[in-house]
Amino acid sequence: MSLTLLAVNCTLKSSGAGEKSSTDVMLRQLLEGFAPYGVEGEIVRAADHDIKPGVTADEGEGDAWPVIRKKLLAADILLLGTPIWLGQPSSICKRVLERMDAFLGETDDAGRMPTYGKVACVAVVGNEDGAHHVSAELYQALNDVGFTIPANAVSYWVGEAMQGKDYKELERTPEAVEKAVGMLCRNAAHLAALLGRNAYPDR
Amino acid sequence: MSLTLLAVNCTLKSSGAGEKSSTDVMLRQLLEGFAPYGVEGEIVRAADHDIKPGVTADEGEGDAWPVIRKKLLAADILLLGTPIWLGQPSSICKRVLERMDAFLGETDDAGRMPTYGKVACVAVVGNEDGAHHVSAELYQALNDVGFTIPANAVSYWVGEAMQGKDYKELERTPEAVEKAVGMLCRNAAHLAALLGRNAYPDR
Amino acid sequence: MSLTLLAVNCTLKSSGAGEKSSTDVMLRQLLEGFAPYGVEGEIVRAADHDIKPGVTADEGEGDAWPVIRKKLLAADILLLGTPIWLGQPSSICKRVLERMDAFLGETDDAGRMPTYGKVACVAVVGNEDGAHHVSAELYQALNDVGFTIPANAVSYWVGEAMQGKDYKELERTPEAVEKAVGMLCRNAAHLAALLGRNAYPDR
Amino acid sequence: MSLTLLAVNCTLKSSGAGEKSSTDVMLRQLLEGFAPYGVEGEIVRAADHDIKPGVTADEGEGDAWPVIRKKLLAADILLLGTPIWLGQPSSICKRVLERMDAFLGETDDAGRMPTYGKVACVAVVGNEDGAHHVSAELYQALNDVGFTIPANAVSYWVGEAMQGKDYKELERTPEAVEKAVGMLCRNAAHLAALLGRNAYPDR
Repeated sequence: MSLTLLAVNCTLKSSGAGEKSSTDVMLRQLLEGFAPYGVEGEIVRAADHDIKPGVTADEGEGDAWPVIRKKLLAADILLLGTPIWLGQPSSICKRVLERMDAFLGETDDAGRMPTYGKVACVAVVGNEDGAHHVSAELYQALNDVGFTIPANAVSYWVGEAMQGKDYKELERTPEAVEKAVGMLCRNAAHLAALLGRNAYPDR
Repeated sequence: MSLTLLAVNCTLKSSGAGEKSSTDVMLRQLLEGFAPYGVEGEIVRAADHDIKPGVTADEGEGDAWPVIRKKLLAADILLLGTPIWLGQPSSICKRVLERMDAFLGETDDAGRMPTYGKVACVAVVGNEDGAHHVSAELYQALNDVGFTIPANAVSYWVGEAMQGKDYKELERTPEAVEKAVGMLCRNAAHLAALLGRNAYPDR
Repeated sequence: MSLTLLAVNCTLKSSGAGEKSSTDVMLRQLLEGFAPYGVEGEIVRAADHDIKPGVTADEGEGDAWPVIRKKLLAADILLLGTPIWLGQPSSICKRVLERMDAFLGETDDAGRMPTYGKVACVAVVGNEDGAHHVSAELYQALNDVGFTIPANAVSYWVGEAMQGKDYKELERTPEAVEKAVGMLCRNAAHLAALLGRNAYPDR
Repeated sequence: MSLTLLAVNCTLKSSGAGEKSSTDVMLRQLLEGFAPYGVEGEIVRAADHDIKPGVTADEGEGDAWPVIRKKLLAADILLLGTPIWLGQPSSICKRVLERMDAFLGETDDAGRMPTYGKVACVAVVGNEDGAHHVSAELYQALNDVGFTIPANAVSYWVGEAMQGKDYKELERTPEAVEKAVGMLCRNAAHLAALLGRNAYPDR
């Protein structure tokens, strides 16, 4: 079975800034990890697009969300990647979540949102502390807008408190991260395939 | 297919206190909601049991956790119910989560915890504000210890800010809560059945 | 003694949208509440300004943050107002907090940030649930970047769970909110005056 | 001027367990750090006392809270120390916060709780990730029950993600922690002295 994935990188840096994104490094590792399970996808860097503030599906002229929204709705798996700032998800990640708020109003007669049956997982990268809280906020927001969360749905890395090392600077990926990447991909692919064949019922 | 559920009520009040628990009211509504899907279970009131502090599977003499743990491991679905205090889950709810920390060390060769394949959902009741945060903390902790979270996995109620009304005092269940109860039961039962027939793979 | 305040409204709506902001309604009530204590200030609506993503004091051409930052550094009290979306602060509020991250690198020889001695308080408005969590995130981020938090530093309102009523629609301000507004103003003004006369020492 | 402090260690381990508490290590460093500012106090290990579940000032026979509550009300500064479990404060820390909920009902005619004028700061220690979120939850709960939070009110340490090193195992205190300890003590002592001489007004 073939599955599709959309990864959204919520780093504050746009691609043009010429600076490597630690979040991007981890998202690429995850995309590689997904490949053996027949999952293919792309990474969209949110900062490269003008996602307008708001909570509707389309905020009008110049709004880049409708295109990303279309990709999201075409994918079986959403992989939301964010850096940590002040122990919290990035403002760009919050913006992406806010735009999904619109799904709450797009239910079918059985109350199911267009995201029903889709699996969400998260990647969190920071130079220090904050990953658990970020995953908590993302799980809750993503679940509120209809996604299903597979077992061990987060892959994260942070360094020792207040030391300032970045994930992209690591010479090699810590074994614990490698394992988490592997689990996330295996579980998310399994669950997405199951739900793809067996939609949440209408009653 | 028949499924089993364990509901844990994390109210601060023990049954003997003779005071009705709003969390219990909602858990009973959920149990009723689960019945049509062939899900049977019981409610354990955590405050009636001496769950010792700690992060192991058994904290020794007098520890009530091992018995609850056994019920949890026998169930397909965990329904964790908690009141809100100061905008946060109860200390008893935190205690229950801490005791599940032990699952992190009980993985099989493929890294799967004994909770893999189990579905978790939550019920949150307060006289005011805090339900989203409580569900965020519970989703994250429950996911960290191996549970899968179905779409719309929370049923909650809180009153208007600082007004002090309790759920158990409501003359009738708000329609929005009834809907949430229905969705939670339908989704959780569906996902638990799927995972019961199709375990997370070992590679 | 005369004190100055900067209120930042982090609604997703710009002023030009022609739609009333519930957050604005509460911020105006707070400004009125501050007046008797000799506190004067203005409300800046963040959505009206192009605050660039990033964590420096100035993100270059077109960045509106440096002007707001200057006002903030000239004020004794920061009043951060945000709506609740998905139980969390708005993306615009997160953006404002991220831009304050730069204060962490602007310490004097004694390790004191330019915000030392300033008092922060928060206003949170949503149609339902989320105020406690929002204030938690704001207190932590604001404290991390040097602000002092007076007793009862939040004024909030949310309606009953899933009912969708807005603060701006209320016919009259609930007494509990009036009290909270009064306490916040009285406490913040007192503390700002104290710290204005008695700076945090350098050793 | 002489000030008093109560430190509460919310580790899950009781003293009798014969195992060193990382939280205790940091609390002792903080007590030393406070001494030069004329602040004297003691550390109460909550796990050594039978603090009953509930939200009143006294939960009856066998409840250890009233004694701790009395010490708290006699102190100018509360230092709340907690380990991190699953990225969150310990259940014992939550229990202590819940018991402070009673302060909300003990206001004077001007709406001031018995904690008004007291300063709260926090110490957070974990083998990995969670300190920012823990401080967020503690700041919010402590502020809700009347405490004032000084600039940089947290001293924390966590190791690299998923590595499992404990604070008590460190051969020397990281410089960043030493600095944070120093700032916390200096700021908390300054603010407590100010508020001791200048109580929050009654109107």
